[in-house]
Amino acid sequence: MATKYVYFFGGGKADGKANSTDLLGGKGANLAEMARMGVPVPPGFTIIADVCNIYFQSNSSYPREVTLQVEENLAKLEQVIGARFGDEENPLLLSVRSGARVSMPGMMDTVLNVGLNEASVAALVRKTTNERFVYDAYRRFVEMYGNVVMGVEDTVLDEILRKARERRPGMELAIEDLKELSSKLRAAANAASGRDFPTDPMEQLWAAISAVFESWNNPRAIAYREIGKISHHWGTAVTVQAMVFGNMGDDSGTGVVFSRNPATGERELIGEFLLNAQGEDIVAGTRTPQPISELKRLLPPCYEELVDVSRRLERHFKDMQDIEFTIQNGRLWILQTRAGKRTAHASIKIAMDLLRERLIAGTEAFLRITPNEVEQVLHPIIDPSERREVIAKGLPASPGAASGRVIFDPDEVVELAGKNGDYILVREQTSADDIRGISAAAGVLTTRGGITSHAAVVARGMGRCCIVGCSSIDVDLEKEEFVIGNRIINKGDLITLDGSTGEVFLGKLSTASAKPSNEFKELMVWTDLVKGMGVMANADNPQDAKLARDFGAEGIGLCRTEHMFFQLDRIDHFREAILADETEERRQALQKLLGFQRSDFREIFKEMEGLPVTIRLLDPPLHEFFPLPHAEDELRALAKRLGISFRRLKEKMQTFNEFNPMLGHRGCRLGITHPEIYEMQVRAIMEAAYELMKKGSTVYPEIMLPFVSTLGGLKLLKKLVADTCEQVGKEMEVTESNYHLGVMIELPRAALIANELAELVDFFSFGTNDLTQTTYGFSRDDFGTFFPTYLDKGMLSNDPFIYLDQTGVGELVKIGLERGKRAKPSLKVGICGEHGGNPESIKFFHQIGLDYVSCSPYRVPVARFAASQAALEAKTNSSADTPGVG
Amino acid sequence: MATKYVYFFGGGKADGKANSTDLLGGKGANLAEMARMGVPVPPGFTIIADVCNIYFQSNSSYPREVTLQVEENLAKLEQVIGARFGDEENPLLLSVRSGARVSMPGMMDTVLNVGLNEASVAALVRKTTNERFVYDAYRRFVEMYGNVVMGVEDTVLDEILRKARERRPGMELAIEDLKELSSKLRAAANAASGRDFPTDPMEQLWAAISAVFESWNNPRAIAYREIGKISHHWGTAVTVQAMVFGNMGDDSGTGVVFSRNPATGERELIGEFLLNAQGEDIVAGTRTPQPISELKRLLPPCYEELVDVSRRLERHFKDMQDIEFTIQNGRLWILQTRAGKRTAHASIKIAMDLLRERLIAGTEAFLRITPNEVEQVLHPIIDPSERREVIAKGLPASPGAASGRVIFDPDEVVELAGKNGDYILVREQTSADDIRGISAAAGVLTTRGGITSHAAVVARGMGRCCIVGCSSIDVDLEKEEFVIGNRIINKGDLITLDGSTGEVFLGKLSTASAKPSNEFKELMVWTDLVKGMGVMANADNPQDAKLARDFGAEGIGLCRTEHMFFQLDRIDHFREAILADETEERRQALQKLLGFQRSDFREIFKEMEGLPVTIRLLDPPLHEFFPLPHAEDELRALAKRLGISFRRLKEKMQTFNEFNPMLGHRGCRLGITHPEIYEMQVRAIMEAAYELMKKGSTVYPEIMLPFVSTLGGLKLLKKLVADTCEQVGKEMEVTESNYHLGVMIELPRAALIANELAELVDFFSFGTNDLTQTTYGFSRDDFGTFFPTYLDKGMLSNDPFIYLDQTGVGELVKIGLERGKRAKPSLKVGICGEHGGNPESIKFFHQIGLDYVSCSPYRVPVARFAASQAALEAKTNSSADTPGVG
Repeated sequence: MATKYVYFFGGGKADGKANSTDLLGGKGANLAEMARMGVPVPPGFTIIADVCNIYFQSNSSYPREVTLQVEENLAKLEQVIGARFGDEENPLLLSVRSGARVSMPGMMDTVLNVGLNEASVAALVRKTTNERFVYDAYRRFVEMYGNVVMGVEDTVLDEILRKARERRPGMELAIEDLKELSSKLRAAANAASGRDFPTDPMEQLWAAISAVFESWNNPRAIAYREIGKISHHWGTAVTVQAMVFGNMGDDSGTGVVFSRNPATGERELIGEFLLNAQGEDIVAGTRTPQPISELKRLLPPCYEELVDVSRRLERHFKDMQDIEFTIQNGRLWILQTRAGKRTAHASIKIAMDLLRERLIAGTEAFLRITPNEVEQVLHPIIDPSERREVIAKGLPASPGAASGRVIFDPDEVVELAGKNGDYILVREQTSADDIRGISAAAGVLTTRGGITSHAAVVARGMGRCCIVGCSSIDVDLEKEEFVIGNRIINKGDLITLDGSTGEVFLGKLSTASAKPSNEFKELMVWTDLVKGMGVMANADNPQDAKLARDFGAEGIGLCRTEHMFFQLDRIDHFREAILADETEERRQALQKLLGFQRSDFREIFKEMEGLPVTIRLLDPPLHEFFPLPHAEDELRALAKRLGISFRRLKEKMQTFNEFNPMLGHRGCRLGITHPEIYEMQVRAIMEAAYELMKKGSTVYPEIMLPFVSTLGGLKLLKKLVADTCEQVGKEMEVTESNYHLGVMIELPRAALIANELAELVDFFSFGTNDLTQTTYGFSRDDFGTFFPTYLDKGMLSNDPFIYLDQTGVGELVKIGLERGKRAKPSLKVGICGEHGGNPESIKFFHQIGLDYVSCSPYRVPVARFAASQAALEAKTNSSADTPGVG
Repeated sequence: MATKYVYFFGGGKADGKANSTDLLGGKGANLAEMARMGVPVPPGFTIIADVCNIYFQSNSSYPREVTLQVEENLAKLEQVIGARFGDEENPLLLSVRSGARVSMPGMMDTVLNVGLNEASVAALVRKTTNERFVYDAYRRFVEMYGNVVMGVEDTVLDEILRKARERRPGMELAIEDLKELSSKLRAAANAASGRDFPTDPMEQLWAAISAVFESWNNPRAIAYREIGKISHHWGTAVTVQAMVFGNMGDDSGTGVVFSRNPATGERELIGEFLLNAQGEDIVAGTRTPQPISELKRLLPPCYEELVDVSRRLERHFKDMQDIEFTIQNGRLWILQTRAGKRTAHASIKIAMDLLRERLIAGTEAFLRITPNEVEQVLHPIIDPSERREVIAKGLPASPGAASGRVIFDPDEVVELAGKNGDYILVREQTSADDIRGISAAAGVLTTRGGITSHAAVVARGMGRCCIVGCSSIDVDLEKEEFVIGNRIINKGDLITLDGSTGEVFLGKLSTASAKPSNEFKELMVWTDLVKGMGVMANADNPQDAKLARDFGAEGIGLCRTEHMFFQLDRIDHFREAILADETEERRQALQKLLGFQRSDFREIFKEMEGLPVTIRLLDPPLHEFFPLPHAEDELRALAKRLGISFRRLKEKMQTFNEFNPMLGHRGCRLGITHPEIYEMQVRAIMEAAYELMKKGSTVYPEIMLPFVSTLGGLKLLKKLVADTCEQVGKEMEVTESNYHLGVMIELPRAALIANELAELVDFFSFGTNDLTQTTYGFSRDDFGTFFPTYLDKGMLSNDPFIYLDQTGVGELVKIGLERGKRAKPSLKVGICGEHGGNPESIKFFHQIGLDYVSCSPYRVPVARFAASQAALEAKTNSSADTPGVG
């Protein structure tokens, strides 16, 4: 049997079907599938993609068999549509389009209205009595053919059109103009190409088919395939289809409908149309389309058929459809159908509804929702109908939307908060001192720093909307204003931030708050049924702990104890402790903090009763606990409060200055050089834990050591923790110690010696922020100066502080995990860096076998969802791998 | 046959030999070996170590066989020496000593003069007519026996002695005192132990033997074995030997000789002796010994015999010997021989001489010299005879010694250098700006920074003596003085530095300069014959390149191009380039540097003709090229020179400030954001290379990209380098490009993706300084604040910036090496960090299979030696592993 090169579709039948994309391309297969379903698609045929390769290999010619099959199918098409190609009475016009195995939008060429010449133009004018329509179609054909097939530059043809339009400023072209244009364009095409514009329809058709095949290898298509890693050997199929026209009078029209509401997800036909128009008239926006419900009144049979077709398509493709249609002389034609784009809210509702309607299975519904959508529905958004003026764009650091008055001083925000509305804190960057200001603000905008800068991390932790690295803004703190270009925004002016896009708007835009829908709640219930890794939260205080628990966290994976020191009634005690020269003096100062820490921990333990609470001992370098060295007034006041000389304070602070604080005296190095601090912290943890235990509560304290790089350091601190716990146990007459000890793996060396570390601890928690910094040698605070270039030039495809670098950093995580678990199979291994809230990274963590992720409370739902989805995907893939019977 | 428990030696014969240490212990085997050789050792016998175990297992008793064999051997001993144990005419005295398989110096007990009682004392007085000698011996015996055997506390016996001495202040004890003492001591021993001091010599002997066996299990011996990982089951042998006395008149004496000069290595008998004295008299220093040559005059036959014995011992043990001897009544006895300690100079000379004398083979000679010795002989040392006052101690950063006047301003050093002697630059720390000052100084002293701080690295690179991190010194730059405790050292005061110990001395000490001896030169010739890894040098200018070549470097492994920018006539052009806002402006400024760089490279290429020159493109962060931000005067002057406003300069400089410059915008990141800089540098390299090639020179330019962390970055820069080279080739009409491209592997990620990087380059060079910083998370500039605690508490056993951390950083080097070579077997892989000059690390690099190391020129000889030794050791070990025939 001869090879089948050409596949027909139309008249309720088709040679191909939906899964023939390898042969027919996406578009051809989709049309065949619709035809098979009895959906009224304009009939046509598809030349398979193999012919594309044959064409190139045969010196741009076709085997006789291909020519014959095209001719046969053309005859069939003429029969189904009831018109003939090149006929002088009732001429058929054709479109010639590309269609590859995967969509390559706009990369290849299309030729419409093939088959027009003087004779068929005349015939169509007679048949339609619509001279304007016919000549306009002719003009378009000549232009497109001249450019695509004859290879004449766009600019040459555009120039002719531009001149014609100049002659009738502000008016439509007259029919005469159109007539003149088509001959001028033909003449220009002939001149530029040195060939004659063909009048023979068959010659036009073959030349158009060849041109579309050749467009597979045009430079932009090749580049697109290289970027998208698409094989150059696949080739494109070519679909030849009858043209239908919506601009043939008031019983014609064109439109787009969605089978469900793409904004809300409601099950209703929604969309718009224009009578006597072509698709591009809707796009151009020159006429205002009518809502689809109007079609019911104007062309009731067409409307009924459209409703019916859209239901069938949705049922068939098992998803909400975005459908393009044209009505030609009262007859409905479906041009295209595809899954419709939708908002996050709609996406969740549609998936859950389709499931309820038994159109899709649970797994399918679950996998259709993206973690990004889950995240979006939790944050307020700017009302899409608002008029917007974007004045600047920075990095979207923490999603959500916020409007408020500009304030530059964090303390002022704290004072003002709650009075007279909301405030946006605007700074060059923020520091640990500004935490209360960030908390009191509705949103934060900084001009420096990346997506993991201090402001970004803190804001995300609080669920506060935040934009960072907005470098086009110049902040002048003295004048209390900021400048963008030649525009000045003063303190008190209203601005709006969109933390999901990084856009800054002038004025107050109304925002829609995030109320979890019923479908969302239902989804989250399921999430726990599917259940992949554990999801814990990063929380430093009882409020966050409660929030985390409400969001479904299964414990606290990271409680940063130093945040507790920044409160006004504590910071000076801590400063006193680290300024002390003598151990005894230091102990006394720390003693004053003990009570605070103990009650902090007690409240957190209470909130998390029955769940583990992982407490990281002091981590940041000491200089962070002091005002900046140049803030002399503050320093003098501090010296006075602490009862030491200003000179002494400055001297002492000098010793905290470091060239590279990120790689300096921090983390457990502080616990080693200042053991009294860690002793106090461990004591506070255990006193709180034992107090509650004695009252009958179930408490799981997990003590975590940061920035471990040597085995010896771990040994020393393990002993310190054990000794302190034992001591507290004795004092409180508790015999059963119930704490776990863990280390953060946040330095490459810790991952490399994970086997040695594992033997001494109960758990690991990867700190992928620091691990990313050290593995790449990227300081996250300085990264902003070259990161944009790295993105532009394609050296990084993503910010590695948001998306875990799986090749490098991920490799170290794998090494650490594997070495750790090999040495101690019972070891619990998780991650508490920023990546713990990033869905893509969460999937990676699931794949390599981590036990849990920990992220900020607001990210817990999305992390739970991503973790569950990862588990489900893994299950689906592994069952797909299982050899089946059929 | 019955087990042989006791081994005799003496009279030119011995039952045991040198390799019987397992049986006889080190001491017993050594004595046996000497006896066998006919060396006059006092005769004796050794009870094997097995008896020690038997003794403990048999409830502190001996099998009959042991008792019998001891008695037999004692009889033999009496016969050889011609005196009888316990005899009342001619009594024999014995020593009883321990001797384990490995030396445990001072851990176990000894009893001397066994066999003394009233009768034998009287006999000896008769025989020697030396009452003082005899009663003194008796007093010593009673004291030792009382303490060791009867278990009486030292303090009890010491007190009696102290009182006796008090009675004769400043005088020797009288014979009466000695007589009285021995009876008082006996009485005290009896009282304290509740036993009677034995008078029966055989009882004394057996009790002494048991006491020595028991001392195997005294607490300090057990602890010593635990620390040294020595088996508790080995037990100790016991050697019973005839006592000989050097204090029996003027035909007696005692002394120590070396078979060669331990200071120079010259082949001459050297040492000293005292007539009529015991060994401890030499140690006590109460009498001044005479040079051994005097013995020739005083006791010529003894001297001749000593010369002969020392030659024989040296020939026998194949090393320079340190020999203890005693002459008793004109008869020479050898008490002990062992390999003698020696200076680095002597060590090399002796090894080479022994080889020439065919006493040892080449491999043996080679392995006997330590890399440390090779290093020491190249640096000047402080004359050991100088009186020294150490005023402070810092970290020994660059070896050698230097005296000079204190200067605080680097520019002043430059000015003064060469006039009125030498200068020592004293700073808190140094920066890139100070390079000329360091170069002009005789030595450098800093109060901050570790062994790999800027000052340390630069000074080592220049072979300049340097001490860093000398924190007990307070530098006051304004007053131009520094303070140590309450002592003030002013500008212009003389101090001396010992860069090998870190000691700072007041005043000028004379130093001995390092002239390589002929033996050293010979050794280095051999080094290349043995040849392990390649050794290249880090050199940034033609002078260093020449030096490196003279020291035997096989090329340049690291040429830091930025050092060339710091010269006065260039720095402003470079500043102009990096301050430029527009690419074109930047190009113009760089154009001015092109000529300088080209001629730098040309001169370096010339020096290294025929050898590879690895040039690292710009690496440090841009702020390093500017004065410190607070140096306002300098900044104003700079702004004026560059023709920009002061405000503009400050603004621009602000953008160079980074929180963690070590992890910031540096290395190839600069090449990516400022491609014009790298283009200029590559152009300069290739123009210089092609110019020389066209003149017939052989040039091997190797272009190295620093701080690579992404594959995309490497691709981009590879293209930049290739395009520039091609362009230069066209311009200069050179068709054959001959450069190699490499990357520095100095970030964990680069090591992890080494397989991907390898495919694009010709070579890797590990930058283990940065790799250590990122793997540990240690900033080398800040490390000093906690490193001392880490050392103290045993968390680090060495500075990881000097000794490569083989567990962590070394693991990454292995990963990078393995992945790189697997992807591209022809890949050349080396290392150019500081560790490239550290002998221990070099051995590691050899073991894992690196192709070369690169280090500062002054370290090239030691690196060559260490590399060759590593190769030889590997060979020796692998041939030892080969199963032999015997």
